[in-house]
Amino acid sequence: MGKTLLALAAVAAVVLGPLRAGAEDPLPSWKEGRAKRAIVEFVKRTTRAGSAEFVRPEERVAVFDQDGTLWAEQPVVQGAFVLWKLRQLAERDPSLRQRQPFRAALEGDLAYFHEDPEAKVMQLVAATHAGATDEEFAEDVRAFLDTARHPKLGVPYTQLTYRPMRELLDYLRANGFETWICSGGGVDFMRVYAERAYGIPPERVIGSGLRKELARRNRRGVLLRKAEVRTVNDKAEKPVNIDVQIGKRPVFAAGNVRSGGDVAMLEYSKGRAGPSFQIVVNHDDGAREFAYAEKDGATLAAAEANGFTVVSVKDDWATVFARPPQARRPPGG
Amino acid sequence: MGKTLLALAAVAAVVLGPLRAGAEDPLPSWKEGRAKRAIVEFVKRTTRAGSAEFVRPEERVAVFDQDGTLWAEQPVVQGAFVLWKLRQLAERDPSLRQRQPFRAALEGDLAYFHEDPEAKVMQLVAATHAGATDEEFAEDVRAFLDTARHPKLGVPYTQLTYRPMRELLDYLRANGFETWICSGGGVDFMRVYAERAYGIPPERVIGSGLRKELARRNRRGVLLRKAEVRTVNDKAEKPVNIDVQIGKRPVFAAGNVRSGGDVAMLEYSKGRAGPSFQIVVNHDDGAREFAYAEKDGATLAAAEANGFTVVSVKDDWATVFARPPQARRPPGG
Repeated sequence: MGKTLLALAAVAAVVLGPLRAGAEDPLPSWKEGRAKRAIVEFVKRTTRAGSAEFVRPEERVAVFDQDGTLWAEQPVVQGAFVLWKLRQLAERDPSLRQRQPFRAALEGDLAYFHEDPEAKVMQLVAATHAGATDEEFAEDVRAFLDTARHPKLGVPYTQLTYRPMRELLDYLRANGFETWICSGGGVDFMRVYAERAYGIPPERVIGSGLRKELARRNRRGVLLRKAEVRTVNDKAEKPVNIDVQIGKRPVFAAGNVRSGGDVAMLEYSKGRAGPSFQIVVNHDDGAREFAYAEKDGATLAAAEANGFTVVSVKDDWATVFARPPQARRPPGG
Repeated sequence: MGKTLLALAAVAAVVLGPLRAGAEDPLPSWKEGRAKRAIVEFVKRTTRAGSAEFVRPEERVAVFDQDGTLWAEQPVVQGAFVLWKLRQLAERDPSLRQRQPFRAALEGDLAYFHEDPEAKVMQLVAATHAGATDEEFAEDVRAFLDTARHPKLGVPYTQLTYRPMRELLDYLRANGFETWICSGGGVDFMRVYAERAYGIPPERVIGSGLRKELARRNRRGVLLRKAEVRTVNDKAEKPVNIDVQIGKRPVFAAGNVRSGGDVAMLEYSKGRAGPSFQIVVNHDDGAREFAYAEKDGATLAAAEANGFTVVSVKDDWATVFARPPQARRPPGG
């Protein structure tokens, strides 16, 4: 009898699951249009048994850039974290305000960074990220996310995730896709909030990172960040790191227009043997979000050449933010 | 009615799953004894709701070394692959037989490698692993695994996985653990067979690797291996790479006695806040497998100091290989 019930359970789950899912619109925050239709048709085509373009469940890997693809990037949130942490450090050690590049960063002197920006930014990252253990760093990030507010919208940064993209993540997972983040952001920074914000666990986050080394503290092995880059997960490094952590070409890849940082990842997905799908979020809605373009237009050119689906925030998204910013704006804010 | 049936299905799965599992011995290839008892008690203690040592499902990470922990390592299989590939290359280019270090490798002249072994081995790895795309390299590995035979046991290497460890992997997964490989072996080598041999998909394999770079072939982005090491996943590098790919300290870690290569990983697991469990396989059964010890005894000393559970092949395993080698020995072999 136990076995019969189990068999019944299995049958019920298999038969009723899809029926139930089919009854609802899986992407209610997407306007009806070319982009939404293309996504839904691709998912159906690759997951329906017997379909000519069927993709086996173990191949269903979907990768998402984070800043500008899953949440707002004006300003880049990790940049705000660096400033927040620098201000904390300057309170404990005021001499920091007199020393470069900290002084320029704290005073918002962008001109200072025009020359040799990489070395200077690396000094900021080293001061705010290096030396800490994983546990200490995660505490810092949590404190920042709990207290910091977006300078214009007045809400916590974690409320600026895009609702249509969260629906898309859920929709892909419901159809057997493993969803991953592959972003230029710091891996340890993203891992603190990715599970709660997107349902993406730490082991499915690929990002930039400093080298770490094993050290002993209180007779316990701990990993310490060094002031040395392990990887900058941008442009051609994205496919390289996808290979390190996943070992398969993504069937589905999502990026956005700003710096051309996602083109290599999208092309790497496109180059897989078998069906694949790529989207590019275009930030063209200054009223509900932020409107900005790419200087050289490389991402849109690559979309045109490769057949990536361009998603217009203005035309394709009925709702932008997961939780409307005004709902949580502080009184009088 | 659909909803009722679904609810029933969920209840049936939750209630009957554990009952059914409890009725059978999950580790039949393990002899009754201290090691088996400790493993089963740890899994029960950390997965029973309400237990003081309960570990949340999202924290249940288990990492396994591969050579000598999941399959036999006499000889190390990837070393056999390097030789197999060198012989192929020498057939196409006989001049290889006159050049070092290829000549020494092909003739089994171990003395040649005593001086400056790393640089010489790196030349062998570069000649046999570098330059290929991921797809070409995987083809090579598959051809090797299909045709090569263990020099003493006369069976394909994939039949030399340890049955008790495969049962342990299944048992942990049935209790909500994510199982990972973390081995000194090449990640691209292991990914070819890990899913079939152990039910571990490519994205849960951590290993050594060469640097890769994105290149264009036939107007498609491909990753090429360079003759340059990205990581040697051994000793202190194991925790570092666990952090890169998982981002959590393992609750369960398994290694073996030979080179001390697993001690840092086992200690890293031990250092997590909350319950953890470590095992060390000790190869003390020359009759059924291979008997060998570690020169400096570091792994057994670390086990003693940290309370790792030592697993004796002779005393703790009722069966050693997943498929007994003699069953497949070729006629007359």
